[in-house]
Amino acid sequence: MERFAIRGHICYSEDKNRIQTIEHGYAVCENGICQGVFDKLPGKWKGIPCIDHGDRLILPGLVDLHVHGPQYTFRGLGMDMELIDWLNTHTFPEEEKYQDEEYAKKAYEIFVDDLLHSATTRVCVFATCHKEATLWLMKRMEEAGLAGYVGKVNMDRNSPEGLCEKSAGKSAEDTEAWILEAAGLANVRPILTPRFIPTCSDELLEKLSALRKKYRLPVQSHLSENQKEMEWVRSLCPQAACYGDAYRLHGLFGGECPTIMAHCVYSNEEEIRMMKEQGVFIAHCPESNANLASGIAPARRFLDMGLKMGLGTDVAAGTSLSLFRAMAMAIQCSKLRWRLQDQRMAPLTAEEVFYLATKGGGEFFGKTGSLEKGYEFDAVVIDDRMLRHARALSVKERLERLIYLAEDGQIQAKYIKGKQVLPM
Amino acid sequence: MERFAIRGHICYSEDKNRIQTIEHGYAVCENGICQGVFDKLPGKWKGIPCIDHGDRLILPGLVDLHVHGPQYTFRGLGMDMELIDWLNTHTFPEEEKYQDEEYAKKAYEIFVDDLLHSATTRVCVFATCHKEATLWLMKRMEEAGLAGYVGKVNMDRNSPEGLCEKSAGKSAEDTEAWILEAAGLANVRPILTPRFIPTCSDELLEKLSALRKKYRLPVQSHLSENQKEMEWVRSLCPQAACYGDAYRLHGLFGGECPTIMAHCVYSNEEEIRMMKEQGVFIAHCPESNANLASGIAPARRFLDMGLKMGLGTDVAAGTSLSLFRAMAMAIQCSKLRWRLQDQRMAPLTAEEVFYLATKGGGEFFGKTGSLEKGYEFDAVVIDDRMLRHARALSVKERLERLIYLAEDGQIQAKYIKGKQVLPM
Repeated sequence: MERFAIRGHICYSEDKNRIQTIEHGYAVCENGICQGVFDKLPGKWKGIPCIDHGDRLILPGLVDLHVHGPQYTFRGLGMDMELIDWLNTHTFPEEEKYQDEEYAKKAYEIFVDDLLHSATTRVCVFATCHKEATLWLMKRMEEAGLAGYVGKVNMDRNSPEGLCEKSAGKSAEDTEAWILEAAGLANVRPILTPRFIPTCSDELLEKLSALRKKYRLPVQSHLSENQKEMEWVRSLCPQAACYGDAYRLHGLFGGECPTIMAHCVYSNEEEIRMMKEQGVFIAHCPESNANLASGIAPARRFLDMGLKMGLGTDVAAGTSLSLFRAMAMAIQCSKLRWRLQDQRMAPLTAEEVFYLATKGGGEFFGKTGSLEKGYEFDAVVIDDRMLRHARALSVKERLERLIYLAEDGQIQAKYIKGKQVLPM
Repeated sequence: MERFAIRGHICYSEDKNRIQTIEHGYAVCENGICQGVFDKLPGKWKGIPCIDHGDRLILPGLVDLHVHGPQYTFRGLGMDMELIDWLNTHTFPEEEKYQDEEYAKKAYEIFVDDLLHSATTRVCVFATCHKEATLWLMKRMEEAGLAGYVGKVNMDRNSPEGLCEKSAGKSAEDTEAWILEAAGLANVRPILTPRFIPTCSDELLEKLSALRKKYRLPVQSHLSENQKEMEWVRSLCPQAACYGDAYRLHGLFGGECPTIMAHCVYSNEEEIRMMKEQGVFIAHCPESNANLASGIAPARRFLDMGLKMGLGTDVAAGTSLSLFRAMAMAIQCSKLRWRLQDQRMAPLTAEEVFYLATKGGGEFFGKTGSLEKGYEFDAVVIDDRMLRHARALSVKERLERLIYLAEDGQIQAKYIKGKQVLPM
């Protein structure tokens, strides 16, 4: 039995309306599972190893429900287009390069290293359609101690020649081989990843659905992000009641199929009802939706209706891997949406976005994203000394400030499933 | 005659549509004035001291046209209100503390040190209404090698007792004493700072106008930021044709009075015309306008009409001192404005926001904000090695990436008026 404790100022969410804080508290880990958070170390754990992080903050590890690994190379560049033009001009040509394993390794090495040094502990990654490069990324993430899902992307239509898989059959065949080769990994698991409806034929979606059932895999994709994309989907799938229905018709939209859909900026009533009914997770990606001028998703509505939701950085339509930045943008964009679009939907609060970045998104992985008893022990220790202050701040205020001002390099330690991955 | 050169990858704006870049170029400084930027060091400067910054980027120092020094203490906190409630709940109680010089020194010391370590070289600061604390801030900034304007704030109505100056006469008297005491400073100069119309009586504005003429001082204030504020101003000044006209009626709105007005989110046709005519500078503060749910200023319109404009961080309604963050937010907010409010106004480009953060705002200080010949030599050297990339990037692309991803701690050297202020 592996047992230890860490001590510091602990912050976590039990629900979306309140942030729990414990000054100089203890978080206890037994065999990778959090035993809870305590003012004083209970007697039964006297003498277990304990690292005292002093005045540092301890948070649950942050959760990124949507990020594109191969796009990390061009983060912050080419931010002057909307979705479809951006995909054709910047994204697809870059993703084609991942056919070259040497290039893929060089690029993914940077992505994995930066992800490791961020506050993120769980992640859902889109790779490319290339099996070998995707496997290499997964192995490298596993070695680094990271946890989450990675998807080999599927795309068999409306894609440039270098990325378009030869047929639905070949795409599914490669996908099955990839699933089998990834079977040995413990913490970085495969997730089925049809890119989005425009690049996936009905035949391909049917085959992925069969693989999903055979291997009991989750699914991730994109939904209702951009107006031109929506029109395109309507013309490609006139039989679907809404964009989400185009996935649902093939059994790839929640229900017994755990599903994340990124964006949902333009989801209509029907689609929202369907997501709720099917338990689909929404990856809310506010920075991406600003950068590609997509709009602002009605996150307030999703929260109030009790839909499942977390945050996504969506690099490289989002520029930064930082979930702190995503939290700040979620608040800021919700205020602009309130001001410019719909004053019935109140802005998001610090409590709500912290919940989304931890327990809200964490739920996709089981019991993760909190430091309550029974949760997998994912935690980050943050050194906020560079954010100096002239007056006393509460732990809650220090966390609030981090949401807006955290930078890389402030992560003092990081634990995933009870294993310390930083410092290495 | 003091002469030196610095070498690196140089980026600067001549106009708003293009960023000039010179790989491994030389920027030459003579007696604080830039002599231009060169591929090779011209013969007449052979042998002058030259620091080679290798693969680093060299930019003109960035310009912050609007920041509140005493609000730096609570940056990132209390971001759940609109302007008037936020002033009464967070801002005014904090500013009252600056009556206590010990508190003021402790707090301003942090502000000045962080400002020094940022990429900002010119700044327009609101202090508080307290003469002594304001003078201390100015002296401390001067000592640190910073340059810009600082204003003792004026407010004689609609303010809490601890901040409300006793009368227009006393406010003006303190202001004149402050102007005289600040006369010895070379680089940190006084600027008249009526807080905004709601807190300044007509009598006070008249007296400030007289001081302006007597001492030939510039003016800074707030304009058309928030809808409730606008209504309030309309009821306070029914005689004014628009909010800006309430300043203009007292000779405090451009013309022979160099003026910066922060925000201009809701400026109407009349006000925009008046700003253009009077050469008023707009401090565009996109993060602040999102955080206080004010809205998004029509920066595209101001640019296209040729109004004078720069960026403001507006700490603490903005959370970060970083002008890079302000540039990114200016682009992102302009995209959301385009999407949600008015598709006639195209989003801002990287070229345009870089111009605003350098030469656009710099114009308020004379010839600053560029590395063209004849400009005051304000420059920052930036180490972007932590933003690793798998493929070759041009200097322009590296700058574009910095806009979204720069962090503190990347400033390797900083020059203001030809004097190296970092590293100290």
